[in-house]
Amino acid sequence: MKPEDFGSWSRQALAEVEQALSTWVPAEAPAGLGDAMRYGVLDGGKRLRPLLVLAACDALAGHREAAMRAAVAVELIHAYSLIHDDMPCMDNDVLRRGKPTVHVKFGEAPAMLAGDAMQALAFEVLTPDESLVPLALQARLVGLLARAAGQSGMAGGQAIDLAATGQPMQESALQDMHRRKTGALLQASVLMGAACGSPDARAWQALGNYGAAIGLAFQVVDDILDVTQASEILGKTAGKDLDANKPTYVSVLGLDAARRRADELHAQAQAALRDSALADTVALAMLADKVVDRDS
Amino acid sequence: MKPEDFGSWSRQALAEVEQALSTWVPAEAPAGLGDAMRYGVLDGGKRLRPLLVLAACDALAGHREAAMRAAVAVELIHAYSLIHDDMPCMDNDVLRRGKPTVHVKFGEAPAMLAGDAMQALAFEVLTPDESLVPLALQARLVGLLARAAGQSGMAGGQAIDLAATGQPMQESALQDMHRRKTGALLQASVLMGAACGSPDARAWQALGNYGAAIGLAFQVVDDILDVTQASEILGKTAGKDLDANKPTYVSVLGLDAARRRADELHAQAQAALRDSALADTVALAMLADKVVDRDS
Repeated sequence: MKPEDFGSWSRQALAEVEQALSTWVPAEAPAGLGDAMRYGVLDGGKRLRPLLVLAACDALAGHREAAMRAAVAVELIHAYSLIHDDMPCMDNDVLRRGKPTVHVKFGEAPAMLAGDAMQALAFEVLTPDESLVPLALQARLVGLLARAAGQSGMAGGQAIDLAATGQPMQESALQDMHRRKTGALLQASVLMGAACGSPDARAWQALGNYGAAIGLAFQVVDDILDVTQASEILGKTAGKDLDANKPTYVSVLGLDAARRRADELHAQAQAALRDSALADTVALAMLADKVVDRDS
Repeated sequence: MKPEDFGSWSRQALAEVEQALSTWVPAEAPAGLGDAMRYGVLDGGKRLRPLLVLAACDALAGHREAAMRAAVAVELIHAYSLIHDDMPCMDNDVLRRGKPTVHVKFGEAPAMLAGDAMQALAFEVLTPDESLVPLALQARLVGLLARAAGQSGMAGGQAIDLAATGQPMQESALQDMHRRKTGALLQASVLMGAACGSPDARAWQALGNYGAAIGLAFQVVDDILDVTQASEILGKTAGKDLDANKPTYVSVLGLDAARRRADELHAQAQAALRDSALADTVALAMLADKVVDRDS
């Protein structure tokens, strides 16, 4: 792919992801559950994780049906975590992607259930009939996603985050928290896409490094945007972390050092792509650019 | 197995399940998350679902490591659903298995996160290194569990339950709700155990029928116990469903007809075991007896 083709690649990929989400998140789930699930995941979000899955798969000319399922599954995990995070007992947020949060729209119990059902659905989507995706690949994708979502990944990071509010934190502890809370799922997106191909050990390692670097960079930039952008651009309440006295890269390092940290991580991601020795990493490189150079 | 050997079989199986849960639910999960997860799943519960997995596996002389992982995974899903069900926005229950519920002990946000992490952990446990469980079997077990846990199974049943409070309900609608809410996971326990062996189509179908019958029988008996037993014997608050004006088999059918329904389902389960043509279904038969003939 040439750099100038990234725009049409990503438009096509996004359209396929939206179509797959709309097909696989069932409107017919009972008693309004499907409505809450669809509200929580459709028609919103930048779909960074699905794009990472598809870009990594395409860099290895991998199994596209498996990658599309992995893309939907990782977005379902991400979206469920936002629904639960926004609930009154967690961040108590009322605005997400410019819309009322799921619990505001549907109530707390339906929101919790919708999140729970979306996590299960992620693993359903990864385990279709074996005529569609080989069983061995299904198992590998489930293993990557479950570990990124669980206690050693996202859920563990959220627990640290919950306990850390109002506490002083060193950069190393902050990094550990974010590698789990946000980084694990972003890295898993890259690795799930890679697993859909047949990466050699060098490419696998390099793509893991790329995923780790952009995973952390994403959070550093999030922390910067939280203090520099208005709510209407973010589509969520700005300044929340500061108000909640949560440790962030900006509060720990200061704004200038946080910006330098984001640039370092961006450079690490690009170096990792060169290390991968893969022929075409244009989409992955452009996605790394977008992680760092964004305004929402 | 002779019927008189069931006691020692189940004691041994229970000891192995407790050991596996204690090993695989990690104390070292960060920021107290592991403590909440362990509190929610260890040292309590009858472990009916794990016993069903192991009994079905043993009836087919199946893959014991896979079955033990399936047993732990299904119990993690069951335990997470109880934690979330007990929360203030759902049933707002303070007592479970004779102890304060997880949100009472640890707070609401840690309880929600612990449940979320337990669902992910279930799928981690099912996807170990392929030297331990063949990847194809891993994928099959994940597929069965995810579908039983999600919108067409347990979570869907809970959504119907939530919407049904205070509404009149026909027996057919009540049955649909419970087949999803409780039955799907109990049936999946049997089928996951069976999948660890190599069942022919006849045995697979018969074990599915057995699982469906005891799955529904379990709920009918639960509804009967809710109105006939004291809280201290149940280990949870008795009379809750009645107080909450929830439709139950007792409120829809009356107590006597509910008891007859439980007996019919018990007979269907035993007939299904005979249909399976498996040589040794003693443990499964005894478990069906225990589902119907219990006092808590």
